[in-house]
Amino acid sequence: MKKICDLGVIGLGTMGAMLSLNFAENGSDVALFNRTPEKAEKLRAYNPGLGERLHPQASIEDLVAALRAPRVIVLMVEAGPAVDAQLEAMMHLLDEGDVVIDAGNSDFNDTVARNRRWDPTGIHFVGMGVSGGELGARHGPSIMVGGDRKVWGRLQPLLEPIAAEYEGSPCVAWLGPDGAGHFVKTIHNGIEYADMQMIAEIYGIMRDGLNLSAAAMARIFADWNRRGLSSYLVEITAIVLAERDPRTREALVDVIIDEAGQKGTGRWSVIAAQRLGVGATTLEAAVSARTISALRHERLATGEIYGNLDCRQAGFENSSEGIGELEAALEAAKIVAYAQGYAALAAASRQFGWNLPLGEIARIWRAGCIIRSVFLQDIARAFDEGRSVVNLLQEPYFTGRMKATQQALRRVVVKAVEAGIPVPALSASLAYFDDYRRTRGCANLIQAQRDLFGAHTFRRLDAHGAHHHQWPAD
Amino acid sequence: MKKICDLGVIGLGTMGAMLSLNFAENGSDVALFNRTPEKAEKLRAYNPGLGERLHPQASIEDLVAALRAPRVIVLMVEAGPAVDAQLEAMMHLLDEGDVVIDAGNSDFNDTVARNRRWDPTGIHFVGMGVSGGELGARHGPSIMVGGDRKVWGRLQPLLEPIAAEYEGSPCVAWLGPDGAGHFVKTIHNGIEYADMQMIAEIYGIMRDGLNLSAAAMARIFADWNRRGLSSYLVEITAIVLAERDPRTREALVDVIIDEAGQKGTGRWSVIAAQRLGVGATTLEAAVSARTISALRHERLATGEIYGNLDCRQAGFENSSEGIGELEAALEAAKIVAYAQGYAALAAASRQFGWNLPLGEIARIWRAGCIIRSVFLQDIARAFDEGRSVVNLLQEPYFTGRMKATQQALRRVVVKAVEAGIPVPALSASLAYFDDYRRTRGCANLIQAQRDLFGAHTFRRLDAHGAHHHQWPAD
Repeated sequence: MKKICDLGVIGLGTMGAMLSLNFAENGSDVALFNRTPEKAEKLRAYNPGLGERLHPQASIEDLVAALRAPRVIVLMVEAGPAVDAQLEAMMHLLDEGDVVIDAGNSDFNDTVARNRRWDPTGIHFVGMGVSGGELGARHGPSIMVGGDRKVWGRLQPLLEPIAAEYEGSPCVAWLGPDGAGHFVKTIHNGIEYADMQMIAEIYGIMRDGLNLSAAAMARIFADWNRRGLSSYLVEITAIVLAERDPRTREALVDVIIDEAGQKGTGRWSVIAAQRLGVGATTLEAAVSARTISALRHERLATGEIYGNLDCRQAGFENSSEGIGELEAALEAAKIVAYAQGYAALAAASRQFGWNLPLGEIARIWRAGCIIRSVFLQDIARAFDEGRSVVNLLQEPYFTGRMKATQQALRRVVVKAVEAGIPVPALSASLAYFDDYRRTRGCANLIQAQRDLFGAHTFRRLDAHGAHHHQWPAD
Repeated sequence: MKKICDLGVIGLGTMGAMLSLNFAENGSDVALFNRTPEKAEKLRAYNPGLGERLHPQASIEDLVAALRAPRVIVLMVEAGPAVDAQLEAMMHLLDEGDVVIDAGNSDFNDTVARNRRWDPTGIHFVGMGVSGGELGARHGPSIMVGGDRKVWGRLQPLLEPIAAEYEGSPCVAWLGPDGAGHFVKTIHNGIEYADMQMIAEIYGIMRDGLNLSAAAMARIFADWNRRGLSSYLVEITAIVLAERDPRTREALVDVIIDEAGQKGTGRWSVIAAQRLGVGATTLEAAVSARTISALRHERLATGEIYGNLDCRQAGFENSSEGIGELEAALEAAKIVAYAQGYAALAAASRQFGWNLPLGEIARIWRAGCIIRSVFLQDIARAFDEGRSVVNLLQEPYFTGRMKATQQALRRVVVKAVEAGIPVPALSASLAYFDDYRRTRGCANLIQAQRDLFGAHTFRRLDAHGAHHHQWPAD
């Protein structure tokens, strides 16, 4: 059995197990190791069809010995100190040229640090973002690879078969050095938060402003999924809304508590954007909306104090025109959210010298990952032939779509605000759009204030350089 | 001359110089050191009235030797590595019981780390936030002290005389251990960004929606400064708007470029809030608005593409009622911003075990600092007698004010959105309010989606525990 495996997987939680099966199904012999070794044995036992390609190992030493050189080891352990602990425990067993892939949801800053730590040893450390959840990992995720370009030739034949496919092209790519893969995954997740929040806000309008049943909403989202908004998240929104609770026979969504969880990557995306000096306001609003949703007991008490506005009086209309307006509003807000996410990618690319292939990122997001959509095909096209894009909102295709949809977004935000239905992410998208096309903003006042109280100086429209004014309060 | 000085100041940039003069004016003998020693000599020479209390030193060693024990040294050097370099260069000269105060705009995380580094040496490291800009430092800043409670008795007689006063009470307090002072200063600055941005948005409405001249706006802000919004920032807004450009004789604000600068502390405040899991959406919108303002060339290009809406058609009215609506809207939005800032303070207090005196913080912000206002007196009162406050929006005084003003905020946001005038921070405040009082939100949909694609489970309204549903897509 020795030295025959194509790669090893360490950590057989849900994602690690599913990735292992995916590798095995696509012809790789996979050495398996888990802290509790029974997990590896069970994985083989429960998947008899793939059993001959799954090779449980009793120890890390055995796993290393079972791999052909140069070795490829995929770590799928909890992000954080567990990754470092595993690396420290394992690296002395490996040889120059071996590749260790961290496929967990690691903070890209940690990935950069780990690259720096292990690079001098000659063992390659690769940070790899894997999106698509459990089902994606099993049947075809979107895979974002960051690390030394030299090892891509070794990894490509292993990763392309397990990745999702979009029109025959595998959704995996080498994106740049060190933290590039995990960073791109982080921004993916920030966009995912924004997508989900904006859909939820539209759902809130349909429920509270139009008094629609979950079943009626399911039909609308299913309809939208046939056109421009066609995407995994809109598709599963229709599925979720159509689902009945086996216990109460009511719509399942109606018995679920309105507190959203989060595992932190959305938060990382907005922290990264802030550090990069990118105004990712829709992503911020989406992450914070989840945070506020979690304060359910506070919300119940505050609702007692203020009451709710009567949403039935809202100006929304349950007509094909009214529903079409919501569809257009969601499209406009979505374009803005992606413009922000892409601005963060572009800023990181510049700041870290990664030279991220922005079009390629849209291409590998077209399938496998949670935000997969036909819309990403339009983004990929904007970057065709390596075109440089300042902001998606300036690109002809999206310019046309925004011109067609922005007034719908404006009307929807107005009606929601009038009715007291919170639309923080939709509002943030619209405010970003209005701010980003404003040729004369209001920050001149801020600069004047800063010069008055802190002598921070300002620039003038009619002269170069930094100016300080002698204010009367001086 | 030896061993007579009450304290030493290292770093004589604007803030360090002004603090030194303030100490001297209030009776302390101050030993001065600067990397370029002429600065210390000049400071004494230019301030002959205070000269006998200012004692320039040629070296750090001389400065240390000139101080009475236990020594107090105030560092006012650039935040970041310069602080560590200065500490490393100096600590071996000090004795147990001496106190080193970092009075710069340090990241509170660095302050925590420095405390941990120096605590074992018996030399006390104090992180101190100083707000009020140049004028404040010279004549009375608001001072936020964090560090070992034991040294407060040594610092209090030095700091109380130099601090701002509000009705006879000095605006300085010991707020908690290690990073507490710098953290509170960070949140102060986040609130400052929000205050400034919301004022600027109202200015934008007056300018673009009402076509008012700067002089007319100056009169309105001066009027507002006599009532509930009375604050330093509203006061200087009136001053700024009234000011004429000596060169063009136009309103000065009209020749200033609409690109806001930032030094990073606003950004830190929203990063800290995100890490603490607090939805500080108005602060986020304010920081991002500055970021977007700085993209002036992109904005000019985008404005070309989309054009501006005709703001003259906006529904704003230049009547006492219309202006009163703006005033009420600003008050409502401001209450929400402070509620968010206080939620961040409360969360940090819990997470770091700081036991922050939240009422005391409002009290020391009432004078000296940039956000000083009568409004802070109302906040201080909410915490009277150590009352525990879940959120300012639930406190009777603010509940009354919000009930009186929230519809004005709603109408202003609606009109601005209709006209295309960006109001990101005002919208964020309103969305937060509507979200925070919503008894049935829309995050149930998000939880259902997360359970479908990631088996993240959800909670039910009618049963305890975490539930997972077998979705048809499984």
